[in-house]
Amino acid sequence: MASHTIRVGIAGYGNLGRGALAALARCPDMRPAGVFTRRDPASLHLADPAVPVLPLDQAEAYRDQIDVMILCGGSKNDLPAQGPDLARWFTTVDSYDTHARIPQYFKAVDAAAREHGNLSIIAVGWDPGLFSIQRLMGEAILPTGTTYTFWGKGLSQGHSDAIRRVPGVRAGVQYTIPVPEAVERVRAGEQPSLSTREKHRRECHVVLEPGADARAVEQAIITMPDYFADYDTTVHFIDEATLVQEHAGMPHGGFVIRSGQTVAERQTMEFSLKLDSNPAFTSSVLVAYARAAWRMKTAGETGARTVFDVAPGLLSPQSPEALRAALL
Amino acid sequence: MASHTIRVGIAGYGNLGRGALAALARCPDMRPAGVFTRRDPASLHLADPAVPVLPLDQAEAYRDQIDVMILCGGSKNDLPAQGPDLARWFTTVDSYDTHARIPQYFKAVDAAAREHGNLSIIAVGWDPGLFSIQRLMGEAILPTGTTYTFWGKGLSQGHSDAIRRVPGVRAGVQYTIPVPEAVERVRAGEQPSLSTREKHRRECHVVLEPGADARAVEQAIITMPDYFADYDTTVHFIDEATLVQEHAGMPHGGFVIRSGQTVAERQTMEFSLKLDSNPAFTSSVLVAYARAAWRMKTAGETGARTVFDVAPGLLSPQSPEALRAALL
Repeated sequence: MASHTIRVGIAGYGNLGRGALAALARCPDMRPAGVFTRRDPASLHLADPAVPVLPLDQAEAYRDQIDVMILCGGSKNDLPAQGPDLARWFTTVDSYDTHARIPQYFKAVDAAAREHGNLSIIAVGWDPGLFSIQRLMGEAILPTGTTYTFWGKGLSQGHSDAIRRVPGVRAGVQYTIPVPEAVERVRAGEQPSLSTREKHRRECHVVLEPGADARAVEQAIITMPDYFADYDTTVHFIDEATLVQEHAGMPHGGFVIRSGQTVAERQTMEFSLKLDSNPAFTSSVLVAYARAAWRMKTAGETGARTVFDVAPGLLSPQSPEALRAALL
Repeated sequence: MASHTIRVGIAGYGNLGRGALAALARCPDMRPAGVFTRRDPASLHLADPAVPVLPLDQAEAYRDQIDVMILCGGSKNDLPAQGPDLARWFTTVDSYDTHARIPQYFKAVDAAAREHGNLSIIAVGWDPGLFSIQRLMGEAILPTGTTYTFWGKGLSQGHSDAIRRVPGVRAGVQYTIPVPEAVERVRAGEQPSLSTREKHRRECHVVLEPGADARAVEQAIITMPDYFADYDTTVHFIDEATLVQEHAGMPHGGFVIRSGQTVAERQTMEFSLKLDSNPAFTSSVLVAYARAAWRMKTAGETGARTVFDVAPGLLSPQSPEALRAALL
């Protein structure tokens, strides 16, 4: 395996695409073989001029030059069409994250990949992804127990978008914050029943449009159904300079805790992430699963897969022998 | 898959064997089909009289009644012979944990299993096992970084045995304790270089023989090479009643922390366990991997495997469709 350098294509050059390109630079067994974009390729200037920038709508022409395509588009507007589309020509990996629609997305990608003899790993990242693995393993190992997922402290893209749609809001970000008391009760093995409000709170930093009514904006945010009404939400008004200086990063993280019993004994499994950059980490996960996808494809597998179907050893550049000797 | 109840044999009835039997009671898709022992079978009385107790040296005769055999013997005296031996007749799972000898043990079990068309997952538990998976995934996802494994607070069987061999010691237990300052520095992303002494300390609770010299015993313990000399060790002298009342449990746990960087950003992955009972948890892991072993065998795989080769989905009793819908 080690003798072939895996040629990786990157479809989409936003935060995830940039992260994937950077992650590939840390993987000597892989190399970026093309960045595919819907923009004018001439308008993209990569740090490494050796990586070709190519038109996404002509990707098919490059199928013999790409071993795995990492789809770096968004779940709402890009992947529903791109996922099945690119699975016809490429082994693919994507970070589709609309949890409720995963079964139908899986089905569409599976059909395309299977028909064309390709392999696609969907919904890769940390949630869905690494957190999903922990939820599964927690239930499988401790079937008597309760699983808790906490997110944050981190910037939520969806909730940030929601506050920016409120009239009078010029810009803003939203942080999801786990309630420390809830986390501590779960860690202590209490297995509490926790409401939405008891698990997380939400913190918004908002820049107002000139002349906007701060009180009206605050009310519109904290009463917004689905997004904020079920949470304790605080709204801070800040100026644009503060937004740029203090809220430009995309930190995130969270915990998956399985709190279970064997006979009388309490047993707790916890997985946590503390990320300075959500997209840089997510794209690092995508790159590791791209390696696995290529190996599974090479072994003759076709169709759609998820992280549940990928043996951990396939993620590592090392051989099974080396892994057993060094990491087991 | 769900229609066949997996028939599980348990080879060895110590702490792990008892834990495995209890864990099977929490898994409706599996059932205990026999406890195999080197003792006189008539001398073992199980809580559930429906489970047959059978002679281990005649296990071969039961090969058609057992889908997976869980080997619950010890790594030092039992598994080196039992592992390859039972792999001839059964699909097996074991918790072989002598890290340095895993490659040679793997080879012996692999040869036996392969020759007889069986499948064996070796070195299952939490370390080796779940911790190994985290070490691997941390390196694969964040290749630039450092991995730290901390154990405890927990009772170490090997170190407890070591203090009991000291002249003048009637009984005793040893706890391995991670140094909180070291854990905090690692969690903060400092990636410190830590000596053995800086990572863990050791705490011994010793019952002396009548007339033994406490000071001599303490010196013999804290200067013992390999086991204690490289650590800050404290020795507490207690009476037998206290030992029984306060130190009869087998708690354990620990952390695997991968502290890495993507470009400039610090990214931290952490997996931790807090276990009231080490053997009850380890046997729960064994039972989940027994399910995976049976599925892999049924799919036609043969030879030795480790946790690195097992896709997470195989551990769960649920179907891939159900897992994607509920846990992804």
